[in-house]
Amino acid sequence: MSSLAVIAEVIKRAGNVLICGHIMPDGDCLGSVLALGLALEKIGIKATMAGPDPVPAVYAFLPGAEKFVSGDPPEGNYDTLIILDCSVPERLGKGYRELAEKKDLTVINIDHHHGYNPFGRYRYIDPSAAAVGEIVFDLLHLMQVRIDSAIATCLYTAIITDTGSFQYNNTTPNTHRRVAELLECGAPAAQVNIRLYEEKPRAALLLLGKALNSLKISTCGRVSWMTVTLEDLKSAGAVDEHADGLVNYARSVMGVEVGMLFREVSEGKYKVSFRSKKAVDVNRLAALFGGGGHPRAAGCVIQGELEDLKEKIVSAAILAAGGSSL
Amino acid sequence: MSSLAVIAEVIKRAGNVLICGHIMPDGDCLGSVLALGLALEKIGIKATMAGPDPVPAVYAFLPGAEKFVSGDPPEGNYDTLIILDCSVPERLGKGYRELAEKKDLTVINIDHHHGYNPFGRYRYIDPSAAAVGEIVFDLLHLMQVRIDSAIATCLYTAIITDTGSFQYNNTTPNTHRRVAELLECGAPAAQVNIRLYEEKPRAALLLLGKALNSLKISTCGRVSWMTVTLEDLKSAGAVDEHADGLVNYARSVMGVEVGMLFREVSEGKYKVSFRSKKAVDVNRLAALFGGGGHPRAAGCVIQGELEDLKEKIVSAAILAAGGSSL
Repeated sequence: MSSLAVIAEVIKRAGNVLICGHIMPDGDCLGSVLALGLALEKIGIKATMAGPDPVPAVYAFLPGAEKFVSGDPPEGNYDTLIILDCSVPERLGKGYRELAEKKDLTVINIDHHHGYNPFGRYRYIDPSAAAVGEIVFDLLHLMQVRIDSAIATCLYTAIITDTGSFQYNNTTPNTHRRVAELLECGAPAAQVNIRLYEEKPRAALLLLGKALNSLKISTCGRVSWMTVTLEDLKSAGAVDEHADGLVNYARSVMGVEVGMLFREVSEGKYKVSFRSKKAVDVNRLAALFGGGGHPRAAGCVIQGELEDLKEKIVSAAILAAGGSSL
Repeated sequence: MSSLAVIAEVIKRAGNVLICGHIMPDGDCLGSVLALGLALEKIGIKATMAGPDPVPAVYAFLPGAEKFVSGDPPEGNYDTLIILDCSVPERLGKGYRELAEKKDLTVINIDHHHGYNPFGRYRYIDPSAAAVGEIVFDLLHLMQVRIDSAIATCLYTAIITDTGSFQYNNTTPNTHRRVAELLECGAPAAQVNIRLYEEKPRAALLLLGKALNSLKISTCGRVSWMTVTLEDLKSAGAVDEHADGLVNYARSVMGVEVGMLFREVSEGKYKVSFRSKKAVDVNRLAALFGGGGHPRAAGCVIQGELEDLKEKIVSAAILAAGGSSL
């Protein structure tokens, strides 16, 4: 581990920097990569912001997003590689993992995930940071870079996406204090929130309506589930991505511990999503049906007759949630 | 207008205080009333927290909620009446309006709504405060009351409900700084968020499903609206408070500037809620129909035939949003 002050000095002496995050980048990853890239450009250091996967449409508004290079690492005579928000080398993606092992590159690894994270000559891992955007905020202060409105927009996005708008328990008093400063630096907070959370396709809302109409709750009250059929998708004019996040509504029922969504992906084939509030390891639950994921969010794909599948999976969920009977 | 410091001194000299908010209390109203009541009790001033309507179930977890007296103003030998978050005397509700005009009571009016708000001997109206909870926070500092975990929980709830989890443009740097301090005082932020947003009554979700099924969008794409009838409430097993927040789903449609909810409150009588994203002053829009509120959130109550009312109000909204035709 290095101190963030040492890393600030190392970065200030760099000449040509490649900055990357992880595969399938989220708001914290992109916001942090772009904020640091814009900051380096501001103080005259050549910076390339890149990653294996493209910027998702919802983050296209971020300042600097148009400069983000996706795919293989772009060619360049880099002296420094800065890796942000990447907990394990596997999540660097194709090409970047090899770069991270090159001996003639100064590799700096900045992250906030728990666990063993060994790569990089310079490492700063702070699991108490809600977002890597918070660490980049502190780093820019140490580097004495003035945070302008563009950089503030990226860091604000990084922080709100990784804290669920300050609702998750990773949010600290200093998260709020950093955000206060970002607003003063010109982060257009309300506009960012509108871009992220208030511009939903009509079809997604119609599909949500249909899903909610199918909401069922077990007698024990600990498990709930919703169903989305191909017919629902069609009549809502919706596509697969519009079903993202629907399962959270099943979990949000009062008293429910495990929420599930049964989504028909083709005739007789279903994707099942599992979410839990605080006690049930849905990773293990999904594993019973050939799937997997995280303790609070997991999924599986299964084939058969819908009512049979539901009975089996709902029963397993009720057992896991400590309830009894449907 | 009085200074908040003067009001702090007046309150500290009070002996028996009645604290009330507005009809159909929301998170800011209840959080502010309870926080101030708990604070007064802490420094040995007799305080009664009350209001015409009961505490909605979702706010029953608030410290002090069990002391809240609903219905007619409770009898008591009060010397001081503190009114919080009430923009117009009409919103005080039955019994309270008369109290607010009594000459032998010291009436203090603390609010953050725009507009002419004349009642009360002492008045502190700060439209730049995102929530009355922020003003109460400052008031307690002026009164030198130490904010404990219970008071912090109430004020945190007040602030997050009136800022939409810091997403609305009323959120300021100082909103975040006050919240940083509330977390340090022991507000259990993640737990409050689960109580407010992840423990929804089944009926509220079923009602959301019905409301989404009624979603309409104007041809210009700038205005959307949903309708909830008494029959919808009944078949979802829902009560009025389950309709809170539904209007936000209308606003969240991509491209929409004004979202509205028409909710039948009794045969032929409708409550219309208005929300806007960034341009339209829905306070003025609602005022056309005898209502009011804030630039981004307002409401009115209107009587008549639903389709006629919708046509009138939707047309006005389209005009305000710069669109053309239904």
